[in-house]
Amino acid sequence: MAAGEFDLIYRYFSSLGRGPAVDLSVGDDCAILKLQPGERLATSIDTLVEAVHFPAEAFPEDLGFRAVAVAASDLAAMGAKPVAMTLALSLPEPDELWLHTFSEGLAAAVKAFDLPLVGGDTTKGPLTITVQVMGALPADKALLRSAAQVGDMLCVSGPLGDGAAGLSVVQGEWEGRWQGGAQFADYLEQRYYRPSPRLALGQQLLGSATAAIDISDGLLADAGHIAAASGVKLVIEPELIPLSAALAALKDREQALRWALSGGDDYELCFCLPSGSPVPKGCTRIGQVVAGEGVECNSSVISQAGYQHF
Amino acid sequence: MAAGEFDLIYRYFSSLGRGPAVDLSVGDDCAILKLQPGERLATSIDTLVEAVHFPAEAFPEDLGFRAVAVAASDLAAMGAKPVAMTLALSLPEPDELWLHTFSEGLAAAVKAFDLPLVGGDTTKGPLTITVQVMGALPADKALLRSAAQVGDMLCVSGPLGDGAAGLSVVQGEWEGRWQGGAQFADYLEQRYYRPSPRLALGQQLLGSATAAIDISDGLLADAGHIAAASGVKLVIEPELIPLSAALAALKDREQALRWALSGGDDYELCFCLPSGSPVPKGCTRIGQVVAGEGVECNSSVISQAGYQHF
Repeated sequence: MAAGEFDLIYRYFSSLGRGPAVDLSVGDDCAILKLQPGERLATSIDTLVEAVHFPAEAFPEDLGFRAVAVAASDLAAMGAKPVAMTLALSLPEPDELWLHTFSEGLAAAVKAFDLPLVGGDTTKGPLTITVQVMGALPADKALLRSAAQVGDMLCVSGPLGDGAAGLSVVQGEWEGRWQGGAQFADYLEQRYYRPSPRLALGQQLLGSATAAIDISDGLLADAGHIAAASGVKLVIEPELIPLSAALAALKDREQALRWALSGGDDYELCFCLPSGSPVPKGCTRIGQVVAGEGVECNSSVISQAGYQHF
Repeated sequence: MAAGEFDLIYRYFSSLGRGPAVDLSVGDDCAILKLQPGERLATSIDTLVEAVHFPAEAFPEDLGFRAVAVAASDLAAMGAKPVAMTLALSLPEPDELWLHTFSEGLAAAVKAFDLPLVGGDTTKGPLTITVQVMGALPADKALLRSAAQVGDMLCVSGPLGDGAAGLSVVQGEWEGRWQGGAQFADYLEQRYYRPSPRLALGQQLLGSATAAIDISDGLLADAGHIAAASGVKLVIEPELIPLSAALAALKDREQALRWALSGGDDYELCFCLPSGSPVPKGCTRIGQVVAGEGVECNSSVISQAGYQHF
């Protein structure tokens, strides 16, 4: 992309770079960020590859939004307050229309999640979107995966399975699956392309949750990471898992539960709370933490599907 | 890559994640870093794409090293002290031998540049290596591109043109170019694959240089960024540009100068010093800052090559 690269970056992205912690934004060798005294930096990097993490026909505006939302979800899972992000974008061609549309989705996410874009690298290559998010944590608190305690409640922040169901809709597989036709198609597509990282909830849980993770790979897989890191067993009661109206209306009930348990792409939080704590509004208790290892979920769906995670 | 992804990351990279500013490394939703009181964060992201930024036949160990060195050079150009880095790696297949060899180069760079690897994302996709570097700056100092002053000296930190000459050697084009045969081939290949980001010099220049940039796109292009950001003109005296013994031995003198002026991939620093300041050891004055705009270089090579940067 060479000579044109800088023009493109400046034209589309330079207005997205301002924020209270940003001392220097796009345009020099590095961006400079300034945390408040005592704050620590939380950071995570996420890559979306065309035809692997999103369909090749995806609308660029949705991709711009989704790339940021997915990365921001890792800040939510640590309880971190958003500070800024950087973007590494590989594009086969410097396509003006594509970049314009992509940047609109990116701008929407910058505003929605308070994540100014402070740096980037635009390169020629197969379409690949990498976002690095940076957030602020207090000196003495963070939501880790490793501190779940036996006796804790296991909770989730919202309905599960919508992300995987949404991908199925995006891929044109929804027809025939739903009673009542296409009424849920828009909702599910939005849940796939425009996930809602639970940033406010994550910061709220800093004072109460013992462990947390965001559900990107599916509840069973991600709960398994908490179990492994904390040295405990998580018992999930599948009948307690919250489902959206869209998933509840699915003809194939087992498919709905399969998506909820292992579909991924939900970007809800899965977290552990000391027994007796109030469950935050909008969240649902789905099980408990016991002695042992791995994840137990008493459902015939599990054994049928043959999950390899455990 | 799904289930195996975590195994791969842990097996190869988890030992590279320790450092004085690292509170939490690879293995949770985010890494956590802690700067010293008053320090600011400098950060930059860089992507290398196969067949665009390196030849497809490149040795993975060299790629691992080079990806980190190139990104670290942006910290050097700001005068920042290295703190940590993250890696987003897209690979067509989870190739164990490739990852093992790549990780050896990565480990060498982690040690050479004090950049512990604190997070990453490994995805299936065309070979793409993205490194985000993070460094520490004092509260009140940074090497920007934007503060060069009329009357300053223009300097560079080492011989130029080796990077582009090295790429030419890597691509098998050296034969016939050099008097004395292949004696410089190894040196130039190393200069291409194993650049030396000038981290110590950058920190040293924090107190004295008015502006700085690292030379990744070629001296003329990168000096042009200083000129534009500072609202000045940079006058380069081509006969002062330092050349390595390898480039000095080149039969085609104009080719040597062309590489030095616009070849790129050198990762030396280009910086401005107030007139009369001592030029740091190993550095060379190559011109001066005057009123005006753009970059002037009185060489017939310039007009012949038809550079589009200005």
